[in-house]
Amino acid sequence: MPLVRIDVDASTSSEALSAICDAVYDAMTLTAKVPLHDKFMIVSKHEAGELVFPQEGYLGVKYTPGIVFIQITWNAGRTTDVKKALYRKVAADIHEKTGICKEDVWINLVEVSPENWSFGNGEMQYAPK
Amino acid sequence: MPLVRIDVDASTSSEALSAICDAVYDAMTLTAKVPLHDKFMIVSKHEAGELVFPQEGYLGVKYTPGIVFIQITWNAGRTTDVKKALYRKVAADIHEKTGICKEDVWINLVEVSPENWSFGNGEMQYAPK
Amino acid sequence: MPLVRIDVDASTSSEALSAICDAVYDAMTLTAKVPLHDKFMIVSKHEAGELVFPQEGYLGVKYTPGIVFIQITWNAGRTTDVKKALYRKVAADIHEKTGICKEDVWINLVEVSPENWSFGNGEMQYAPK
Repeated sequence: MPLVRIDVDASTSSEALSAICDAVYDAMTLTAKVPLHDKFMIVSKHEAGELVFPQEGYLGVKYTPGIVFIQITWNAGRTTDVKKALYRKVAADIHEKTGICKEDVWINLVEVSPENWSFGNGEMQYAPK
Repeated sequence: MPLVRIDVDASTSSEALSAICDAVYDAMTLTAKVPLHDKFMIVSKHEAGELVFPQEGYLGVKYTPGIVFIQITWNAGRTTDVKKALYRKVAADIHEKTGICKEDVWINLVEVSPENWSFGNGEMQYAPK
Repeated sequence: MPLVRIDVDASTSSEALSAICDAVYDAMTLTAKVPLHDKFMIVSKHEAGELVFPQEGYLGVKYTPGIVFIQITWNAGRTTDVKKALYRKVAADIHEKTGICKEDVWINLVEVSPENWSFGNGEMQYAPK
């Protein structure tokens, strides 16, 4: 159900990308009850200048051109504590697996309702009973 | 009003892409009262490994590297039945026109309010009266 | 806090892109109280045919292949008047700085809640008190 968009610099290696995807999936399943195998992600690579961030940093966080933008569209209903745990685990795991700074892990959540998904086959798999 | 993001494998032909766009537009106008000529879409092509899906499938649906991700941002207010009809028609028409498996047609809806659009010219065309 | 996705034709120059990003940022800070340095944007370039718009135009607005799609995800709560001012200023400034027609400036807003952001470091910077 989550659709995860991951936008990174073109220099990011396939290994790092794969580790980023795994880290996001693991964090979603472990902290936010995302179902097993619910791993749908779109990765886009960007040339220099296409990922824009403030040179001065924001709220005390400083960024590098290695910034990783993660936008997760998923069902509404997660609590603030669950979201906090998700952010912590995504940043920690990406850092541990790839060496990317935790400062460079940038996350946004977009919330929708269960009717808003078709996981293939023209069906509404999460239709209300 | 809908903004449709379509993410496909780089090997997808121009003909198939054009047919996918037409199928989504036709389905939106025929099942969900999207106005005539309201056809705004952003297509992105992806290299191998950039479209991530579960190898095991999800909810009984199996995917191939030819998976087509369709994310539609549009105004809230469509009923569950309308969304079901949309999913059915999008998948059926894409399959019919391109041969892509219906299993590989993946759809997500994001809902916003009418004030949230400017269709050019710096105007809010759907402003409340 | 806003995450701005900007999708343009591949022929768009770096100078024009930079001016577009600056125009969107300036408009957000000046009309919608987006904080200073809160400038996070993802630019994607597209080949011919990947940015789809109606040849007939829509609601009286005509488009060219130089259409600029701007999708802003930000916190809910802006009034209709603020959104109108934002649209006006984004289109006017992009036109003034780059010569792009105001008709070709296309904007969509997606609204989320303050808990839905991590600006790096694994933290929820806008956590409720």
